Amino acid sequence: MYNKVSIEIIEKLKKIVGEEFVILDEESLKLYSKDYTENLSFNPEVIVKPNTTAQISEILKLANEEKIPVVPRGGGTGLSGGALPIYGGICLSMEKFNKIIEIDKENFQAIVEPGVITQVLMEECEKSDLYYPPDPSSKGSSFLGGNLAECSGGPRAVKYGVTKDYVLGLEFVTPTGEIINSGARVLKNVTGYNLTQLLIGSEGTLGIITKIIFRLIPLPRKRKLMLAAYNSIQECATTVAKIFQAGITPSALELMEKSAIKAAENQLGKKFPNTEAEAQLLIEVDGNYEDSIDRDIEAIAEIVTEQGAFDIILAEDKNKMDELWALRRCIGEAVKSISEYKEEDTVVPRSKIPELIKGVKEISGKYGITTICYGHAGDGNVHVNILKDKSDDSVWEKDLDIAIREIFKLTVSLGGTISGEHGIGYSQKSYLPIALGEQEIALMKNIKKTMDPNNIMNPGKIF
Amino acid sequence: MYNKVSIEIIEKLKKIVGEEFVILDEESLKLYSKDYTENLSFNPEVIVKPNTTAQISEILKLANEEKIPVVPRGGGTGLSGGALPIYGGICLSMEKFNKIIEIDKENFQAIVEPGVITQVLMEECEKSDLYYPPDPSSKGSSFLGGNLAECSGGPRAVKYGVTKDYVLGLEFVTPTGEIINSGARVLKNVTGYNLTQLLIGSEGTLGIITKIIFRLIPLPRKRKLMLAAYNSIQECATTVAKIFQAGITPSALELMEKSAIKAAENQLGKKFPNTEAEAQLLIEVDGNYEDSIDRDIEAIAEIVTEQGAFDIILAEDKNKMDELWALRRCIGEAVKSISEYKEEDTVVPRSKIPELIKGVKEISGKYGITTICYGHAGDGNVHVNILKDKSDDSVWEKDLDIAIREIFKLTVSLGGTISGEHGIGYSQKSYLPIALGEQEIALMKNIKKTMDPNNIMNPGKIF
Repeated sequence: MYNKVSIEIIEKLKKIVGEEFVILDEESLKLYSKDYTENLSFNPEVIVKPNTTAQISEILKLANEEKIPVVPRGGGTGLSGGALPIYGGICLSMEKFNKIIEIDKENFQAIVEPGVITQVLMEECEKSDLYYPPDPSSKGSSFLGGNLAECSGGPRAVKYGVTKDYVLGLEFVTPTGEIINSGARVLKNVTGYNLTQLLIGSEGTLGIITKIIFRLIPLPRKRKLMLAAYNSIQECATTVAKIFQAGITPSALELMEKSAIKAAENQLGKKFPNTEAEAQLLIEVDGNYEDSIDRDIEAIAEIVTEQGAFDIILAEDKNKMDELWALRRCIGEAVKSISEYKEEDTVVPRSKIPELIKGVKEISGKYGITTICYGHAGDGNVHVNILKDKSDDSVWEKDLDIAIREIFKLTVSLGGTISGEHGIGYSQKSYLPIALGEQEIALMKNIKKTMDPNNIMNPGKIF
Repeated sequence: MYNKVSIEIIEKLKKIVGEEFVILDEESLKLYSKDYTENLSFNPEVIVKPNTTAQISEILKLANEEKIPVVPRGGGTGLSGGALPIYGGICLSMEKFNKIIEIDKENFQAIVEPGVITQVLMEECEKSDLYYPPDPSSKGSSFLGGNLAECSGGPRAVKYGVTKDYVLGLEFVTPTGEIINSGARVLKNVTGYNLTQLLIGSEGTLGIITKIIFRLIPLPRKRKLMLAAYNSIQECATTVAKIFQAGITPSALELMEKSAIKAAENQLGKKFPNTEAEAQLLIEVDGNYEDSIDRDIEAIAEIVTEQGAFDIILAEDKNKMDELWALRRCIGEAVKSISEYKEEDTVVPRSKIPELIKGVKEISGKYGITTICYGHAGDGNVHVNILKDKSDDSVWEKDLDIAIREIFKLTVSLGGTISGEHGIGYSQKSYLPIALGEQEIALMKNIKKTMDPNNIMNPGKIF
């Protein structure tokens, strides 16, 4: 199906990027064989580290001609195996594309290379009172290129939208080596098809992004955070839609069930108040004027109390807020450190969260598996972590897949879909037909084939 | 190239949609031969008015087999000739797809057929304190399907984004008759390629939209409006970026030059204050709390005064605001009623507006043509209306095209592009290579060919 990376091809790659940026040692290959997805690992045959768009174009032309798979790699923090070289081939690491080319303070735009770490851009923007909102949990190490590939979200998406909502244009290289400029430095654009949005969320299967034009917004001047504790996860989940129905849009609205918070406490080695609560909501409000924020906070406090919260903690200073956010942000890692796991990224209309969680718990009970739910409840995005923990190997091997299918069928029946922000990648692709029909998949495959006739670009992902 | 609509095909169409919805009389054909674009007119051979997705699928399968062009038609308010049947064929009118299927108050979503008039949806949403922001000037008669096809904007785009930012999913029929469901009832989605965003802004060339899932937001509780008058269009234009740089995001920020306001006064048969000013800014602020709005208004008043405004009118009650908005909203029609015209839809980074307007006026002077500039300055989108007025026929025939090319080259050199919200359609397609390179256009054409192998779907548009 694919050709192997021969000595001749290695020599050609060295000519393109320079000898020191073609890496073949076993240790490095092992390092680039994984991302953050479960315990999956596939060695690439070679790692190349280009630093210009022209080099990437040459590499892709070569790979296309020789039928060698090319797997683009960012920070390696993906949760659906998007960066795994499952057919070997070339791992194309974007780590040298690490420059913020321009922060345009006059027009609230940033021109950035895709190897810049998410948080580095956020902090650079903040220096100019500008805000780049999409902040996945991995923001300290994820690359912006990877954020685009997976259309990352994060807690602030509920008010500010996801990665796709901040991209005005791209430079990217197609699988056949053409260099494409999509979009422009403008907020509105209907000049031909929206290639920018076709690339975003395409999980590295349609091309390699080499430059990004971001739109930015003014940095909100103030923030306040509250943590509301419930004795019932259903009451907690029901609150979510009620807050929006009062005309309030929080800048974050996260749900955490007890076992998620307990795992986080263990991870941080630190006790938090009310952690015997069955579930908690972390709710942030931001804006420019403190009195407006206070009015929203008061209105939210009233709603959460009406809905059954037994205690509310308010954090107004930065340290206290950082502490609560640390609790939330470490959950992903904390839960995964308990045992072998599978993580699902369900998303439903927000009023359906109680039904989704109820269903997940019923399915867990039926198959005797442990599930921990947490996530971006404000936009209906619930991460369902399934832990092997003390389950029998036979349950894990046979029933897990059946249970996941039931969870996803429930999700879709509620008007939702099977990935909100992690992508389909390698680990979820067998579930894609639960969310999409044959015709939709056929159309996507046709587009893929048009742009990548030899299927060299991150093959074995999505479909 | 294409086949004619034969008597046999007419009979087949009658079987699909019913005899009374296949229309052939000359008067109707004339009516459906135009949209709002200049004085262009092309008769279709037949008009069909389906009312189910299945009928549209059958029509497209038939047309694809028989190689008959199909031109989808919404409200007919387009400004780039997107609905013109330039090769004849079937005019597929979406007027019977006029149902709001559901307003989901719990999740802030609307499920809508594409033949619903924009304003009808807006008003229906407002009854539930919900807001659908994209409000093109034609909102009283434009169809939502057409708004999606052209990715319409309007004055509120500056704070709330354009049509694409409110679409979560679609049902559409491909040119070969497949019924596709893209997206879901969710705010985040990375489950395969973003077919929704590929369709939006594709100007009816990739398929026919038959159902739309919109996201809505809470209706802002209050609004205030101000009109700032300047003796210099350059000072007026320079103010635009300054307002945003102060951390304020107005809900509308419109620029109108003197001749635009004069035309509007004539159209409305009514005098407005300060209309001897060289240019004016219409600035709206909205939100939930009056004191926050007042603080923004005060800050803006300070900035516009610093930048040279000689008078500011504040409108706080609905009647006064409606009056000022009526002035702005009638400009398009008013300017076009002066004489034969060409309208361009330039868009640049907002700090470049002074340079764009200066350049447009220089080019006008050089060729002896009259230009009137107005539009959505807040997002850098300036409508340049070129009037024939008293120009010689020879100027209009020979120099107009050269002048437009110069204006567009200037726009692109400033980081902008040639259409912000009107689309390329038929009237702008000869200018597309100014904005896009050969490779970009080739890639778009390949996608078109993949989805529409016989090029029956709105042919002769964009490319």
